Amino acid sequence: MKMLEKKIIEEGCVLSDEVLKVDSFLNHQVDPVLMKEVGGEFASRFAGKGITKVVTLESSGIAPAVMAALILDVPLIFARKRKSLTLKDGLLTAEVYSFTKEETNTVTISEKYVNEKDTVLIIDDFLANGQAVEGLISIVEQTGALVAGIGIVIEKAFQDGGKLLREKGYRVESLARIKSLKNGRVEFSEEVLV
Amino acid sequence: MKMLEKKIIEEGCVLSDEVLKVDSFLNHQVDPVLMKEVGGEFASRFAGKGITKVVTLESSGIAPAVMAALILDVPLIFARKRKSLTLKDGLLTAEVYSFTKEETNTVTISEKYVNEKDTVLIIDDFLANGQAVEGLISIVEQTGALVAGIGIVIEKAFQDGGKLLREKGYRVESLARIKSLKNGRVEFSEEVLV
Repeated sequence: MKMLEKKIIEEGCVLSDEVLKVDSFLNHQVDPVLMKEVGGEFASRFAGKGITKVVTLESSGIAPAVMAALILDVPLIFARKRKSLTLKDGLLTAEVYSFTKEETNTVTISEKYVNEKDTVLIIDDFLANGQAVEGLISIVEQTGALVAGIGIVIEKAFQDGGKLLREKGYRVESLARIKSLKNGRVEFSEEVLV
Repeated sequence: MKMLEKKIIEEGCVLSDEVLKVDSFLNHQVDPVLMKEVGGEFASRFAGKGITKVVTLESSGIAPAVMAALILDVPLIFARKRKSLTLKDGLLTAEVYSFTKEETNTVTISEKYVNEKDTVLIIDDFLANGQAVEGLISIVEQTGALVAGIGIVIEKAFQDGGKLLREKGYRVESLARIKSLKNGRVEFSEEVLV
């Protein structure tokens, strides 16, 4: 998605060979016009797939996901992230390890809002090792719902989360795929995914 | 706002005289169409006030705030909430005590994204004791920016956050004002605020 790649080039901050900071339009300050375009692009890529719910993870997933949900005309559910959790009734959970924050969170969704009749589009801001998305898939599939696919704003294609998910048969649509962050430079992947 | 009041009556869950759960459209599952209407209502109430930034607090504030920011055509900044925080350069902080969660969080915004030239609309999902909004005001005013007003989705008017903010001279626009949750019933306030 050209508009997103342009924004990453202009405003993204390469902090290391592995870390891209996009605090100015996605993770702290949010560009609502870009989010609307991103949401529209997800909606168009998953059009006709019978999506009934969009699921994301707080907090950075919410802005692009609510825009996609608006255009798809379905509810959004944002999973909650908690450091530790006393087990509570009616909550579906998954443990998610964050490599950047070096901590494990319990990610939860109320079983009231996703069920076996649902076809779910999972949306997240970043895909790196795929831990967060794997957690969301686990929760959604616990309900018996179908995961129609995964929409990612920025995929770090040099890490293996996307590869592993695609190998498992999930459709992953990433709007920007970064091949490398070496030498302080963002290089996008030209790879065609089928 | 009638559409919101209707939704609260139909789907809100009165858990006690003080607690209203709106997990089905605002705090966990999110109704994107309602959020668009809510955002539009905030934008229209603060039209012509020269708003340059919308500021909210993760996570439940993000969906209504990004819709308001889209219509006002300005960036959104969502403040981060952290249990404890080693002081970091470039972060503006405030301590916010949550009565519902019985914990104190450090709320932060990067000083890169709000400055003394800004006119800020603060948006949050709930207003009860006003702790979260007071924290956001404190951060915004540390930068020298002007707080043009506060947009609240649901105000618990039987708690004193709104009263205290209005007494200090802040313009608070709440789209639903709840007078009482007694006897498991939601009663809206008819009070005219000037």
